[in-house]
Amino acid sequence: MPTISNKGRNMPESPIRKLAPYADLAKQKGHKVYHLNIGQPDIKTPEVAIEAVKNIDLSIIEYSPSAGYESYRKKLAQFYQRQNVNVNSEDIIVTTGGSEALLFALATITDPGDEIIIPEPFYANYHAFASSTSATVVPLVSTIETAFALPSIEEVEKLITPRTKAILICNPGNPTGYLYSEAEIKQLAGLIKKYDLYLIADEVYREFLYDGYDVHFSVMNLEDVQQNVIMVDSVSKRYSMCGARIGCLITKNKEILATVMKFAQARLSPPTIEQIACEAAIDTPQSYFDEVIAEYKERRNTLIAELNKIEGVVVTKPKGAFYCIAQLPIDNADDFAQWLLESYNLNGETVMIAPAKGFYSTPGMGLNQVRIAYVLNKKDLVSAVNVLKEGLSAYKNR
Amino acid sequence: MPTISNKGRNMPESPIRKLAPYADLAKQKGHKVYHLNIGQPDIKTPEVAIEAVKNIDLSIIEYSPSAGYESYRKKLAQFYQRQNVNVNSEDIIVTTGGSEALLFALATITDPGDEIIIPEPFYANYHAFASSTSATVVPLVSTIETAFALPSIEEVEKLITPRTKAILICNPGNPTGYLYSEAEIKQLAGLIKKYDLYLIADEVYREFLYDGYDVHFSVMNLEDVQQNVIMVDSVSKRYSMCGARIGCLITKNKEILATVMKFAQARLSPPTIEQIACEAAIDTPQSYFDEVIAEYKERRNTLIAELNKIEGVVVTKPKGAFYCIAQLPIDNADDFAQWLLESYNLNGETVMIAPAKGFYSTPGMGLNQVRIAYVLNKKDLVSAVNVLKEGLSAYKNR
Ligand SMILES: Cc1ncc(COP(=O)(O)O)c(C=O)c1O
Ligand SMILES: Cc1ncc(COP(=O)(O)O)c(C=O)c1O
Repeated sequence: MPTISNKGRNMPESPIRKLAPYADLAKQKGHKVYHLNIGQPDIKTPEVAIEAVKNIDLSIIEYSPSAGYESYRKKLAQFYQRQNVNVNSEDIIVTTGGSEALLFALATITDPGDEIIIPEPFYANYHAFASSTSATVVPLVSTIETAFALPSIEEVEKLITPRTKAILICNPGNPTGYLYSEAEIKQLAGLIKKYDLYLIADEVYREFLYDGYDVHFSVMNLEDVQQNVIMVDSVSKRYSMCGARIGCLITKNKEILATVMKFAQARLSPPTIEQIACEAAIDTPQSYFDEVIAEYKERRNTLIAELNKIEGVVVTKPKGAFYCIAQLPIDNADDFAQWLLESYNLNGETVMIAPAKGFYSTPGMGLNQVRIAYVLNKKDLVSAVNVLKEGLSAYKNR
Repeated sequence: MPTISNKGRNMPESPIRKLAPYADLAKQKGHKVYHLNIGQPDIKTPEVAIEAVKNIDLSIIEYSPSAGYESYRKKLAQFYQRQNVNVNSEDIIVTTGGSEALLFALATITDPGDEIIIPEPFYANYHAFASSTSATVVPLVSTIETAFALPSIEEVEKLITPRTKAILICNPGNPTGYLYSEAEIKQLAGLIKKYDLYLIADEVYREFLYDGYDVHFSVMNLEDVQQNVIMVDSVSKRYSMCGARIGCLITKNKEILATVMKFAQARLSPPTIEQIACEAAIDTPQSYFDEVIAEYKERRNTLIAELNKIEGVVVTKPKGAFYCIAQLPIDNADDFAQWLLESYNLNGETVMIAPAKGFYSTPGMGLNQVRIAYVLNKKDLVSAVNVLKEGLSAYKNR
């Protein structure tokens, strides 16, 4: 048999993929599985977006421009400007999801062996995107004890080598829910400037803030280092339109944009119909966001309150996004997660959690942690955490 | 300023991108520009697909499975089976366009420096996909004199080195319109087997055949070497749904599929709404294809007849797809194409052609050739070729 590339071999598997067959098995046994493992919100897509799809007036579904429709990029720039985020339409390339924007950003700035510093735990697919472009991830350990705050800037600086090309942050963060302060981001900007690196900020959860909207500081508002800044965004979570596969890459650096354009032209265009839906979605009324954020805030409060009732569980209250990392009174979260699906049920119900190991790249980190997404309604969240609690004691006594 | 990757720097620019500003300028002057340069058909998308979009019944646009909806993969497999092409639903991963399938195929089998043999002239983006995964393209020169037939198998064999991983063919071909015979494909399969390589076949134009439907031999029907075969397909041209960004990668090799799945999971999913449209499109009646193919066949016949009337033009009749390579009685097609837009018009009309240089990777090849797409209606094609003819003599006498 001919061979598979090292790149392909080294691509990490999704941290929950191994568990999927066990979840299927549990369902086949007739058990209800609460999915605390996924980032697919149950929130409705804004009606303006769905209506735009239903009213589509096309007889040919043509390629859009490789950078996305100009009309969409213009409205998107206005959207950012209304939030006082410094973005113009010519700074934007529309991508197939935030995922593609991350891939283009890494491919544009790294060659095989170049290094990207990423605070860990981090979104597991950062590893995959780095692998597929043959870059090396250098983890910057942050811990549950300090609520996943950025380590001291000296710690960050120690990781910089001649191969370092960028620091990649997720703000607010998946899987931690951590929100970087303006001061932290400005400290990073200082390093970026000193070593002439890039700062890539994944802001796909920028709307999901639970202590007021104005606490988010976008990297696009950093002065002084605009040539070194790349922002990644997406409609997936903002409008609960994950399946639209529309994101964007934003930068003031024309050389980066021109190179990203070459990657964008090679793949021809982002999806046409979904872009039309996204353009319409920009007219989503503020009341939609107010309701969604209020709902998530209550879910967060419920989840954290319930988790804190379980003896031995350590969890910090996330400030944004819709995930948290919980440390459990067990040794091996992989084994526990599988056991919950394979061997446990509480009155016919069980729960699926994401072992946190997959969100760390430092070996041995996060073994007793799991990521919990609060994309279920409150009632289900309470039931799910109860299953988790009873499951923990049954697991201890098994 | 921080640096751009070599990978990014080496990404080829689209062969027509340089010309786009000149086309804009011509339009600003009020000139009509016939676009013979693009592969965006003017054919209507089947109504069943548009209706499926209009009748969409979703309140949340969710991620689809990373491999695509199972219902779509099942219908797609039936579609191939009806054509006696050996494909089952579990052999298929739905991708974001054929483009992504090509990228995944190359990333799965090549590491930096590995070689892919491609008959040239070839679809320019093959170069881009190879660059982005740091693989090296080894061109196999085919010439207009032999109507772009596969060179002798000895010529192909000479190019194989220890770094060779695959032979990539496009059947029928963009930009040549060449259709590989069953015998040629079986010869390639022999080499594939002898050296344990992969055969990747881009069959996105598989419906566009002008000498009967049954002349196309899919690599999926090769016996004996199924573990070495990867097929790439797309709805873009089949249903004139280029903007849907739905394609697929097909193989019987489970290790390849598992690795491609890792790349597919990292980017989460292909577009949701457009997949629903594609599933509906599979019910497109045969009469749609009969009409479309008849239309293209007439366009081809018209285009070739008109081109043959121009003195000094060499062109071979394409057997499939909707492009041809024409050799012009000039030295530098780049310069001529720019001049047509910048300095020429015939009664306020001019024409945009794609210099063929961008479809070759061997330096110096194709300098006096252009690619012409016949995606315009017959009347426009006749007018466009007339502009080209008059333009050629004006250019000679300029
Ligand atoms: C942190 C983070 N970044 C990027 C993405 C990619 O999202 P998409 O490609 O749907 O825009 C996700 C999706 O879950 C995410 O959690
Ligand atoms: C030969 C060939 N392969 C692949 C593609 C990619 O098409 P898509 O990504 O739209 O499926 C094209 C598009 O023009 C093409 O000409």
